[in-house]
Amino acid sequence: MDPVSISSALQSFSAQWQPRRLATVNDHDVKIARISGEFVWHSHPDSDELFLVVDGHLSIDLRDDGTDSVVDLGPDEIFVVPAGVRHRPRAEAGTIIVMVEKVGTVNTGDAGGDRTSELRELGG
Amino acid sequence: MDPVSISSALQSFSAQWQPRRLATVNDHDVKIARISGEFVWHSHPDSDELFLVVDGHLSIDLRDDGTDSVVDLGPDEIFVVPAGVRHRPRAEAGTIIVMVEKVGTVNTGDAGGDRTSELRELGG
Repeated sequence: MDPVSISSALQSFSAQWQPRRLATVNDHDVKIARISGEFVWHSHPDSDELFLVVDGHLSIDLRDDGTDSVVDLGPDEIFVVPAGVRHRPRAEAGTIIVMVEKVGTVNTGDAGGDRTSELRELGG
Repeated sequence: MDPVSISSALQSFSAQWQPRRLATVNDHDVKIARISGEFVWHSHPDSDELFLVVDGHLSIDLRDDGTDSVVDLGPDEIFVVPAGVRHRPRAEAGTIIVMVEKVGTVNTGDAGGDRTSELRELGG
């Protein structure tokens, strides 16, 4: 592969909640997404999901064994949602995140629906 | 896990070439390291290795099937060294990198030697 620049990657797309692949490491993808507003509740039965906030602010609502909690992340902060844990990302306008998860993990997980976005390549 | 801040992580250690674990995603670790100068030639037979430069400048010498090349990375740039490819990182003073690779991957790979550093936890 050629080196990939996060800033160049961001210049190549503007769509919200449509992750782009930055790189693949073994069987894991590293993705970047622009996000804003509230996403859908979902879980990923087969993969943990790492969130790194590049810019903006991300809240992740979590529902685990009937216990609700919220994690708030600012720039350079990292959180991992374990496989199977229901979560709902919410972000302020202009938020940019990097994610790490197993190849084939879909953004809406087990929820499906019209927010589902196949992973896109950079520039695509 | 609790959220982890990259900047707080950096405040917790100063040693060079001694990666700290930021997070684990499935069977992959996300690590951070301060690096400066030249490392040893080595390869990781069992894992790709992703490098993201957080600050500074990293050059990665590569030797693959007898062909030598160099990849230069500045801040926010990403490169993946495929499993089995011999490489030698070289960095300017003050460089900070994040890595993603399989759990258990050792910094010196198949080379071993006194630069080998067991993965440390933050603050350790």
